[in-house]
Amino acid sequence: MGVDIVRRWLAALLFAALAAAPLGSPVWAQAEAESDPLPSWNEGATKAAILNFVAEAVREGGPGYVPPAERIATFDNDGTLWSEQPVYFQAEFAFERVRALAPQHPEWATTEPFKSILTGDRTVLADLGEQAFTDLLAATHAGMTVEDFEGEVKRWLATARHPRFDRPYDELIYQPMLELLTHLRANGFKTYIVSGGGLDFMRAFADAAYGIPPEQVIGSTVVTEFRLEDQTPAIIRLPEVDFIDDGPGKAVGIQRVIGRRPVFAAGNSDGDLQMLQWTTMEEGARFGLIVHHTDAVREWAYDNPSVIGQLKEALAQAPERGWTVIDMKTDWKVIYPFEMK
Amino acid sequence: MGVDIVRRWLAALLFAALAAAPLGSPVWAQAEAESDPLPSWNEGATKAAILNFVAEAVREGGPGYVPPAERIATFDNDGTLWSEQPVYFQAEFAFERVRALAPQHPEWATTEPFKSILTGDRTVLADLGEQAFTDLLAATHAGMTVEDFEGEVKRWLATARHPRFDRPYDELIYQPMLELLTHLRANGFKTYIVSGGGLDFMRAFADAAYGIPPEQVIGSTVVTEFRLEDQTPAIIRLPEVDFIDDGPGKAVGIQRVIGRRPVFAAGNSDGDLQMLQWTTMEEGARFGLIVHHTDAVREWAYDNPSVIGQLKEALAQAPERGWTVIDMKTDWKVIYPFEMK
Repeated sequence: MGVDIVRRWLAALLFAALAAAPLGSPVWAQAEAESDPLPSWNEGATKAAILNFVAEAVREGGPGYVPPAERIATFDNDGTLWSEQPVYFQAEFAFERVRALAPQHPEWATTEPFKSILTGDRTVLADLGEQAFTDLLAATHAGMTVEDFEGEVKRWLATARHPRFDRPYDELIYQPMLELLTHLRANGFKTYIVSGGGLDFMRAFADAAYGIPPEQVIGSTVVTEFRLEDQTPAIIRLPEVDFIDDGPGKAVGIQRVIGRRPVFAAGNSDGDLQMLQWTTMEEGARFGLIVHHTDAVREWAYDNPSVIGQLKEALAQAPERGWTVIDMKTDWKVIYPFEMK
Repeated sequence: MGVDIVRRWLAALLFAALAAAPLGSPVWAQAEAESDPLPSWNEGATKAAILNFVAEAVREGGPGYVPPAERIATFDNDGTLWSEQPVYFQAEFAFERVRALAPQHPEWATTEPFKSILTGDRTVLADLGEQAFTDLLAATHAGMTVEDFEGEVKRWLATARHPRFDRPYDELIYQPMLELLTHLRANGFKTYIVSGGGLDFMRAFADAAYGIPPEQVIGSTVVTEFRLEDQTPAIIRLPEVDFIDDGPGKAVGIQRVIGRRPVFAAGNSDGDLQMLQWTTMEEGARFGLIVHHTDAVREWAYDNPSVIGQLKEALAQAPERGWTVIDMKTDWKVIYPFEMK
């Protein structure tokens, strides 16, 4: 490129920027402000609280300012970024793996939890004892490399269908939360998943579904082992739980992986209580957000008691802690991206 | 700001950029190329190999191109980014803590490993049994919040002096490696520490010393626990080792925290062998780097056998694996930043 072309190219950029930008603000901030960054959220206190927090976080010199390096936002996954009914989707993945592997395991016809999974008795999930859980984990989530496991998850996502919506599970993500993730990132926040779900399970789709890269996913883990065989290094998943990223474990996982306290956290169950406390019970600008499942028609309505996503203590603490509670039925115009097509 | 001021400000930026930039390349790349990005490295095969790898990594369409998201570089800390002689600096921190706490522990006068630490018998370190190690860990690295521990490390760094150089330990970082970190980041690499050292110990200085933020430090960990007492949430360090980020553990730690395979790894001992293998034994552009301690005058000369930083197997594998070995004595013009003042 000659210098003239470079100059003309840069000049074009310059004038395009000036044309698009009202005075006194960065181009991107104004471009976003002209359109609604959260179009799937109904106007109201919830949306206003979120928009206000983000606007203040980037307003230098204001009381709600958050320096860029501290703009850490953490999101639970099951029930917060995608649905979790009628059972956690990762459990569906495990059941599917059992069905696929059953021909090689005739003994499963008479062994729990495999027998109940194969006969379709879903009650087994609620009462999975420790040994049954370990056996299921070993059969479906271990004994392979991390890459091979990721391949299994991707194959499942490509073929399995949710029983109610008859769509791939990764289409049951929440459109309003996608907009929130995008809005936070557009304002310099680093968005993390912090979930009780399996780390490698979530990494298989988090980037494509949410724009969250593997290094920003925190989850439950199995013990893994490095092996070098035939000049091929591999990391193997073993059938042993290493870390449960749920409840107090979420605060521990955040500290271990991020090493900074988030300023924004979103969850939907009592498994998110300690993450919300750890994030918000500190001086300075803080935001706690709870997705309350109140829409039995478009999604599901549940809180307490509930086998999945029990929400009691976190909801009770929300008023005193200043956490914002999303009423899914009234706050969200749509639930899933496919509703918009 | 009025639109005229914005236009003039942008125009000034534009012409400054054009003035600085030779034709056909991004401004920053050319600005860096005009000056040497690795001024503390002597010309030779080592420097050329590094510069060539980075230049190829950003050259779109070339055989060595690495997409931005995959530009992950991992560095060991002890002996790779700072010195590790006469003992690992974290051990010095532990010894100092023992001396500071001794008045409250009269029983230490007759109990190992405290007795030897207090009498200055350094041989104890080499032979620390498991129980002695656990006792030392409990006394010096646990029973406090993560924040309080970080404060202890910072106080130690501010007051302690290295026995040979009579300088703060965090001044014994390698100037050539600082330049390498900066050069990698200027070319879109995300730089991580992956070290056997303690995670929270390293986080206390990694950002200031190396420009590596807390979320890009991977290290050995103790078990931690979330507690909420008197409306104050805290994460407490317990006297139990959780994970040793050394040897095969480095590959495991990388996969767990980053979830991507690095394309660049640097180490100095056999504790880095598996990280180097995991990084480089794969198709595509890969770079393995070993700091060989060959300079007994300006730093230390050691490899095998050595109680600290033993380097035998990784050095033996370097030729067949194509790893670049830094000869500290001949490749580096200076060792420490303070030599340049």
